[in-house]
Amino acid sequence: MNEKNKKPQKLKARLPRGFVDRATADIRAANQMMETIREVYERYGFDPIETPLFEYTDALGKFLPDADRPNEGVFSLQDDDEQWMSLRYDLTAPMARHVAENFQEIQLPFRTYRAGYVFRNEKPGPGRFRQFMQFDADTVGAPGVQSDAEMCMMMADTLEALGIKRGDYVIRVNNRKVLDGVMEAIGVGGDDNAGRRLGVLRAIDKLDKFGTEGVTLLLGEGRKDESGDFTKGAGLTPEQIEKVLFFVGITDYAESAVHLAELVAGTEKGAEGVDELNTIRSLVLGAGYGPDRIKIDPSVVRGLEYYTGPVYEAELTFDVTNEKGEKVVFGSVGGGGRYDGLVSRFMGQPVPATGFSIGVSRLMTALKNLGKLGQDEVVGPVLVTVMDGDVESMGRYQRFTQALRAEGIRAEMYQGNWKKFGNQLKYADRRGAPIAIIQGGDERSQGVVQIKDLIEGKRLSGEITDNAEWREARVAQDVVAESELVAKVKEILAAQAEDRRRAKGL
Amino acid sequence: MNEKNKKPQKLKARLPRGFVDRATADIRAANQMMETIREVYERYGFDPIETPLFEYTDALGKFLPDADRPNEGVFSLQDDDEQWMSLRYDLTAPMARHVAENFQEIQLPFRTYRAGYVFRNEKPGPGRFRQFMQFDADTVGAPGVQSDAEMCMMMADTLEALGIKRGDYVIRVNNRKVLDGVMEAIGVGGDDNAGRRLGVLRAIDKLDKFGTEGVTLLLGEGRKDESGDFTKGAGLTPEQIEKVLFFVGITDYAESAVHLAELVAGTEKGAEGVDELNTIRSLVLGAGYGPDRIKIDPSVVRGLEYYTGPVYEAELTFDVTNEKGEKVVFGSVGGGGRYDGLVSRFMGQPVPATGFSIGVSRLMTALKNLGKLGQDEVVGPVLVTVMDGDVESMGRYQRFTQALRAEGIRAEMYQGNWKKFGNQLKYADRRGAPIAIIQGGDERSQGVVQIKDLIEGKRLSGEITDNAEWREARVAQDVVAESELVAKVKEILAAQAEDRRRAKGL
Repeated sequence: MNEKNKKPQKLKARLPRGFVDRATADIRAANQMMETIREVYERYGFDPIETPLFEYTDALGKFLPDADRPNEGVFSLQDDDEQWMSLRYDLTAPMARHVAENFQEIQLPFRTYRAGYVFRNEKPGPGRFRQFMQFDADTVGAPGVQSDAEMCMMMADTLEALGIKRGDYVIRVNNRKVLDGVMEAIGVGGDDNAGRRLGVLRAIDKLDKFGTEGVTLLLGEGRKDESGDFTKGAGLTPEQIEKVLFFVGITDYAESAVHLAELVAGTEKGAEGVDELNTIRSLVLGAGYGPDRIKIDPSVVRGLEYYTGPVYEAELTFDVTNEKGEKVVFGSVGGGGRYDGLVSRFMGQPVPATGFSIGVSRLMTALKNLGKLGQDEVVGPVLVTVMDGDVESMGRYQRFTQALRAEGIRAEMYQGNWKKFGNQLKYADRRGAPIAIIQGGDERSQGVVQIKDLIEGKRLSGEITDNAEWREARVAQDVVAESELVAKVKEILAAQAEDRRRAKGL
Repeated sequence: MNEKNKKPQKLKARLPRGFVDRATADIRAANQMMETIREVYERYGFDPIETPLFEYTDALGKFLPDADRPNEGVFSLQDDDEQWMSLRYDLTAPMARHVAENFQEIQLPFRTYRAGYVFRNEKPGPGRFRQFMQFDADTVGAPGVQSDAEMCMMMADTLEALGIKRGDYVIRVNNRKVLDGVMEAIGVGGDDNAGRRLGVLRAIDKLDKFGTEGVTLLLGEGRKDESGDFTKGAGLTPEQIEKVLFFVGITDYAESAVHLAELVAGTEKGAEGVDELNTIRSLVLGAGYGPDRIKIDPSVVRGLEYYTGPVYEAELTFDVTNEKGEKVVFGSVGGGGRYDGLVSRFMGQPVPATGFSIGVSRLMTALKNLGKLGQDEVVGPVLVTVMDGDVESMGRYQRFTQALRAEGIRAEMYQGNWKKFGNQLKYADRRGAPIAIIQGGDERSQGVVQIKDLIEGKRLSGEITDNAEWREARVAQDVVAESELVAKVKEILAAQAEDRRRAKGL
C-alpha cells in the first residue's frame, strides 16, 4: 500500500491537515463538561453504549450532510478481503447498525447515549476539523412524538446544567412532514421531484446565512456569491417561493397555526405533521417548558436527508463577535430529529427512532464565551528538587516524593538534568508547582529540608499582587525536620487553598 | 474511491471483522477503572494531553511491534494531496511527534498521560481486536534512570490502587544495554549483525511461550511448531546460545550480578547497562519497593525495536484457566521502557524519554478474574407507565417524570407502543427499573397514583430470594396522592438502597 520512500535526513514533525492536538486545560474542561452532560442523560434514563470507529461503508449509507454522492467526504479504505470500510462520520448510523445487528437481544425502547470522535474527509479550514467529538442520545423503538418532546426537554436541561441561562438558548422544533406537505401543496411532491425538494431544503437551511433575499434566489434561478461563484437554484416559480417563504417565516407558531393548516390542507403528510407539532407543543408546555425554552419554528430544516418527522435544534441566542469583528448570534450547538428509516433499512420492518447530537467543541467554545467553562482547578505537583545526583541522595529525594504521594499529595522529583538548579525552579514555575522541597549537603547533615512556598514567594516578590487586606503574609520559606516534611507541606497547601477560596470571594 | 455498488435489497447489519461494540456495563466498569489509573498518574505529577487518531505515515516510523517491514499492520490511506496518513498503532509515536512539533513551547521534563484507541491492521482472532484502548504515561526530557525507576513504582501503585494485591503482580525490569553488551560479548555486535540481534530478541521474547527448549531452537537453527511450520532461528553457535540462556535465566539478580558483570565486561554498553540496573534497584528499594513488587529480571525483552535502555513489564502472577482448560499465569498487562531515539529523529538533537503503556481491556479481564472490576452500581430508571395515550394524559405522565428528574431521580416515561401494558412491565424488568408508576382513569379521577416497588414485588413473589432475617417485607404496592409521588418514590429508593447495603454486609 505504501510506496518505499527514501528516508529523509531529518523527519519533519507535523500533524496531517485538519487535525489538532489537545492540551491539558482543554481536556480537563471537556471532561468536566461531558460529565455534566452524562449526568443529565443518565437522569433521563439513558445508558452508555459505544461502537468502534470503523463501519462497513455500505452500513453508513449515503446520509452524509451536504453531500450528494454516497461516501463523499468519508475516510474509506479497503480491507484485505476487498470490502470497503469507512471511519464513521457521525454516531447515528453506527448506532442504527448496532441495533439492527443485535435486534433479538435488545429490549425496545432502547435508550442510549455515547460520546466519540467522528471523521469528515473534507477540506480543512479555520475552526473546521476533520476529527471532532459528538455526544449523542437516542431512543429507538419509540413511535410517538412524546419521545421527540422528551429529547427537546433533555437538550434544554443539558444546556441549563452547563450554566447557560434561560433566555440565552432556545430549542427550535419543526417537522419534516409539514415541510413535505408544503412541498406537495406547491406541486413538488412525489418521487420525481426528490432532487428539487433537496434543493429547497438546502435553500431554507441557508436562511440564517443569506437572509430572505438570498434564499429567494436559491429557491428560484440561483444565486451568485461575492466571489462570483454561481449556485444553481431549486427553480421554483414566484408563487411557489412565496408559499415556502411564508412557511419558513412563521415566527409565532400559535398565531400562524391556522394559516399553516390551510396551506398544507389536503396533502398526504402535512396535516399529520401539524398535528405532531401541536402535540409536542402541548407536551412541553404541560411539563413547564414555555416558548422561551422550546419553540416551534418552521425555519428549522436540519441538513440530513434521513429525518422523517420532528427535527430540533439547540441554538444559543447570545451575541458573539465573529472573525470579521461583527456581532452575530452564536447559533447552533446541536440538534437532531426522528429517523424512522435508519434502522429499518437493515430490518425489513419499521423501527421508529429519534435522537440528537451535540457538537462538543462548539459547545465548549460557547461555554468559554460565557465564562462557564470549568476552570483548571488542578494544582501543580509539589517539586522535590535534586541537589545531588548520587544514588543515595536520589533515593532520599525519591522517598520524600513517595511519602507525599502516599498522603494523596501531587508530587514529583525533578527528572531533568539536575545540574542546573535554575532550570529546576523554572520548571517549577512553568508547571505551577505550589511548593519546592530542597535538601543540599548542609541540610542533609542536619536531617532537615527547606520548604519553599512558591505562591507566597511570588506574592512577596511582587510578581503577583493582590489587594486582600484580610491576610498577613506567610513566610515563603521554612526549614523543618525531615520527619515534619509531609505535615508542613499539607499545612502550606491548605493555606494556599484557603487563599484561593477567599480570592474568589467564597 | 468507492465503486458504485448496486444497492442490495436489504442491507446486512454487521461490524467489520476484528471490531466490537461495547455494552453499558463494560463502559461503566472501564470508566471507573480508568478514573483510578488517572488519579494515580495525577498524583505522580502527570497531566493529560491528547493527539488525533491520524498521523502522517512517515511520522509513525517503522516501529510497529513484530513487523519487519514499515507500516505493515497499519491502517493507511492517501490524503487528497497524495500524502500517506495512518491510524496510530500506539500512543508513543504520536506523543513523540507532538513533543518535536511543539518543542519550543514545551518545558522539559514533559510529564503527560493519555488514554485512547489504537489500531492494528492484522488478522483478527479470538480476543484479538483491531481497535483497542491503551493508557500511557511518559516523561520526555528525563535523561536519568530515576525516571525509569519512577515509572516502575507508578505501575506498581496503579495495580494496587485497582485492588490487585501485593504478591499478585510484579514489575519486571531489564535493560537493553545489558542485552546489547551480551550480544557484543558473544560476537554479534555492530551494525552488520542487526538482523541477527533482532532474531535473538524475538527468540528470548518467546521464553514464556516455548520454554528454554524452544528458545534454544530459535536461537540456533530454528524451530518447527506443532502444525509443521518452520521458524528460522538466529543461527547462534551452542557456546553463544549458552551465554544468552545464562543471561535470560537469571532469577536472582543480586546473586548473579557479579557473573553478569563478568559476562559483559569490556563491552561498550554492557557495563553501563548493569550500572543502570543497579541504580534502579537501589532507588526502588530505597523507596520501599522490594523485589516482591519490582524485580530485576534479565528475561524481559519487550518486542519494540525503539527501546534504548531500561525496559519494564507489569505482570500479573496469579493463575487463570485458559481456553484449553489449563492453568496459566495471567501474564503481562502493560509495560514500557526508555526510547531516547523516538523524539530525536525529528530533532537532530538528543531527547531522552521513558514511558509505559497499559492494555486497558486486558487489565479489565484481569480485574474481572479477581472480582475487582467495578460492579454496575447504577440503578435503572423509575418507569412512569402510560395507560392512556391522549395528549392530556401523556402531559400528566410527563410532568410526573420531570418532577422526579428535578429531584435528581433517574426516571423515564415509557416511550414504546403504550397499548400493550405487558410490554411496559417487561421493559421495566429488563431495564432493572426499581419502581413503576401507574395512573389509569380511576386513579386520575381521584388524583392519586399507584406506586409499585418492583424489587419488593419480585421478592414477595419468590422471583428473588434472600435469607435476610433482619428485614420485614415492605408493601410492594401503594397508592398515594399525586402531590406525594416524589416523596414516596424517594422513600422506596432509600429503603432499596439500604437493602442492597445490608445484603453486601456493609
